Amino acid sequence: MVTRTLADLAAYVSGIARGNGNEVIRGVGTLQSAVPGQISFLSNPQYRRYLATTQASAVLVTESDAPGCAVNAIVVSNPYVAYARIARLFAPEQPHSPGVHPSAVVDSAAELGADVSIGPNAVIEAEAVIGAGSRIGAGCVIGRAVSIGAASCLEANVTVWDGSRIGARALIHPGVVIGADGFGLANDAGQWIKVPQLGRVVIGDDVEIGANTTIDRGALEDTVIEDGVKLDNLIQIGHNVRIGAHTAIAACTAVAGSTKIGKYCGIGGTVGIVGHLEIADRVQITGMSMVTQSITEPGTYSSGTPLEANAQWRKNYARFKHLDELWRRMKALEAKLNQLQGKG
Amino acid sequence: MVTRTLADLAAYVSGIARGNGNEVIRGVGTLQSAVPGQISFLSNPQYRRYLATTQASAVLVTESDAPGCAVNAIVVSNPYVAYARIARLFAPEQPHSPGVHPSAVVDSAAELGADVSIGPNAVIEAEAVIGAGSRIGAGCVIGRAVSIGAASCLEANVTVWDGSRIGARALIHPGVVIGADGFGLANDAGQWIKVPQLGRVVIGDDVEIGANTTIDRGALEDTVIEDGVKLDNLIQIGHNVRIGAHTAIAACTAVAGSTKIGKYCGIGGTVGIVGHLEIADRVQITGMSMVTQSITEPGTYSSGTPLEANAQWRKNYARFKHLDELWRRMKALEAKLNQLQGKG
Amino acid sequence: MVTRTLADLAAYVSGIARGNGNEVIRGVGTLQSAVPGQISFLSNPQYRRYLATTQASAVLVTESDAPGCAVNAIVVSNPYVAYARIARLFAPEQPHSPGVHPSAVVDSAAELGADVSIGPNAVIEAEAVIGAGSRIGAGCVIGRAVSIGAASCLEANVTVWDGSRIGARALIHPGVVIGADGFGLANDAGQWIKVPQLGRVVIGDDVEIGANTTIDRGALEDTVIEDGVKLDNLIQIGHNVRIGAHTAIAACTAVAGSTKIGKYCGIGGTVGIVGHLEIADRVQITGMSMVTQSITEPGTYSSGTPLEANAQWRKNYARFKHLDELWRRMKALEAKLNQLQGKG
Repeated sequence: MVTRTLADLAAYVSGIARGNGNEVIRGVGTLQSAVPGQISFLSNPQYRRYLATTQASAVLVTESDAPGCAVNAIVVSNPYVAYARIARLFAPEQPHSPGVHPSAVVDSAAELGADVSIGPNAVIEAEAVIGAGSRIGAGCVIGRAVSIGAASCLEANVTVWDGSRIGARALIHPGVVIGADGFGLANDAGQWIKVPQLGRVVIGDDVEIGANTTIDRGALEDTVIEDGVKLDNLIQIGHNVRIGAHTAIAACTAVAGSTKIGKYCGIGGTVGIVGHLEIADRVQITGMSMVTQSITEPGTYSSGTPLEANAQWRKNYARFKHLDELWRRMKALEAKLNQLQGKG
Repeated sequence: MVTRTLADLAAYVSGIARGNGNEVIRGVGTLQSAVPGQISFLSNPQYRRYLATTQASAVLVTESDAPGCAVNAIVVSNPYVAYARIARLFAPEQPHSPGVHPSAVVDSAAELGADVSIGPNAVIEAEAVIGAGSRIGAGCVIGRAVSIGAASCLEANVTVWDGSRIGARALIHPGVVIGADGFGLANDAGQWIKVPQLGRVVIGDDVEIGANTTIDRGALEDTVIEDGVKLDNLIQIGHNVRIGAHTAIAACTAVAGSTKIGKYCGIGGTVGIVGHLEIADRVQITGMSMVTQSITEPGTYSSGTPLEANAQWRKNYARFKHLDELWRRMKALEAKLNQLQGKG
Repeated sequence: MVTRTLADLAAYVSGIARGNGNEVIRGVGTLQSAVPGQISFLSNPQYRRYLATTQASAVLVTESDAPGCAVNAIVVSNPYVAYARIARLFAPEQPHSPGVHPSAVVDSAAELGADVSIGPNAVIEAEAVIGAGSRIGAGCVIGRAVSIGAASCLEANVTVWDGSRIGARALIHPGVVIGADGFGLANDAGQWIKVPQLGRVVIGDDVEIGANTTIDRGALEDTVIEDGVKLDNLIQIGHNVRIGAHTAIAACTAVAGSTKIGKYCGIGGTVGIVGHLEIADRVQITGMSMVTQSITEPGTYSSGTPLEANAQWRKNYARFKHLDELWRRMKALEAKLNQLQGKG
């Protein structure tokens, strides 16, 4: 079991220890449920009410929250970042047993780096290259000529299709599909003609991809996910999309083909973004927004209407169909009233 | 083949047989397509028009619909519930052949209960415990120290990640991912630091989970799905979420992290629910609603705007951007008119 | 490597070659990135600006765009369709090695047509019938009595459940689940009773299904996907749904149970369609629309509200709750003003 003193942890996160620097910390917990020996953190103000009564041995807090902390503290500028770093110290190591499980099917023309682990019933096809120290979990299917960088982890039942490239330190959760064909169809008098999808998926370093997310290969050019991008579960990334470095996207969002999203963006969950748009760097889009035009300036953007009791909503919903008429009738009223006042 | 008399079926569902109690029933069908020998039901009033012409040998109806039924009937208070019970009598048994398929990979430190069936190419890792009579289908991957109760069924290609707990009589459809990491990221000057996801997924008894749905493990505490919850396909359940007993959620809905949903709720499809909310018991939310605030009272809630012909929608859509201005101009008009009347 | 002269390609797509008919074409590329030896196309007017500077050896254009083309051209009525046909000439053949991989598990009572290929760790259960020339990729699970037509391809980790029928020339991408139970539940005083899902999924010829899409089996009748339907990724098709021939649906759209969609429709991404509706032939629905009523006429339909800067959106969003009140106050103003004018 990992243990650290409070003073050690403070130094590790460049914070200032308050209280007993020799306190021994053995793990992490929430303010509400931590037990003695654990360190907690206060980041979301919604949880400030637990600060006075926490059983944690110490709490990561900002300078302004420190006075309200009844136990030992480490004062830092960003408690959540400091918590993330400390929690990683205490998190159990993922077991890693290099070697190819006897039930795995590895083509003789695949290339496995040093200390690679290939799990039970995984399939690695010809010319695939798996970087040193990477783990390919049970049931994963790695297609022809796929390239995966060093120290990456594909958890289980992940499919990576022919020619896709994934960088170093990727973390790819179960059920992800990378490199399936984009939705390219040409309509010939009602019949759909398939447009061959000849591009690849190219993923940078330090990318995390959530369970059952799908990233399609490009039609002619590549679909590109830049370094440090974080994708949640059940996201759809269409063909030819580019997602800029360090952008994060929450679950169930769909990005249609050929759209380019900038760097350092934050996209909420269940957002829909149509194709062929450009979204600038440092754009935030709140959950469930519908994006139909390019966004050229950083900032926070939203769409949607509020949740209401069904009976009230039905009334407002019906009026939406007449919003343009409402506007025009209001303008007519203004004109009439102006005329009346002119006459008065 | 299972057969029952009408009288037997009426007794089985605590209903009253009308007509020939000795009629032999061999199966179930819809009002439109049932053939003689089958029993049907009328639940959705939209299908009442088929009651007079059905070829079914009998129909499950309410007292008020009974007079319109041209064939034998069983009168019950809830025809759909009675139909569900009767259909289960006639449904083919799922074949269950206890044993471990020779292609499955079961760790020697896994524990299999009596009459467990492990399908082809399934993988069961160390310290996993599979309850008596449970079936783990082809291609499923059951991680370390997972616990699955008795008489549960994981259909195929399901992934259950380390430490997750599933109760008895679970029915989990293909492609489901349970226990992948939650989307926990701390932003350190633009770079994302991964927050270790140390909690588990804990699922009660009698839970059904639809195809390709994902349920993330908790960050520090557990993600909890209580007894009798029913989840449809392609649903996202974020980390630390709790879903109360007997709540049902339709397809493609996303529940963001740390939200607590009450018992006996019904959530429609493609709903988006933001994180850190509390939703009371017995709340109904209609499809495609956006939920951004806690709901403290039972009732039915909705959001969204109506479908319109595109040309008309474009006009109303454009006016939405000026809704606040419209409100303020209307108030100005009211003030002006009041003043004018005062003067008059 | 495939090569063709410009004149050959023009004949192949029934177009007219302009420039050097003997120019040798070796592949395809976009206007921006094509290199000499490649043919490109101009379809989306957004890319017309690249026509003057493209390095392609030839471009597929309409008659009206031909004058702006600085290089060889093939004039056609629909450049995208012509491009699709030509790109297929140059696309690499999918490798197809008939035979059953030794790691696959094929039940002795399954029936494999001529030249079928069964990939590593695939599972084919009893009484399944796989048509001639079809490919079942790595990790696919084909349930009991499933029927798959000739020349179909299931890429990898696809699950097709008992009794489903798939036609000829299907292309099914990784992670798809066909034939899982529909979401059929009857509520008995708060407890959910499972309604057995006794129907099948029946899929016509020439259907493409995107990664991680789910299509549920019917409750009593079948879920039907007609010939030539194209489904993108992460789509949910509920039980008893029928999708008419040659309809295309973009990613993340959900179609609830028993809804019938006509032929030649185009449904955008992240659309929600409630159950028990009928949608006519040749209907277009734009992305993210909410469909709660049947559509009886062809045309284009939409719903939703515009993306705005968050601060402005908050104001408009708040006013939406008072839209009905706004309407009524505007009508009161009109009445008052009329009265006033009457008096005047």
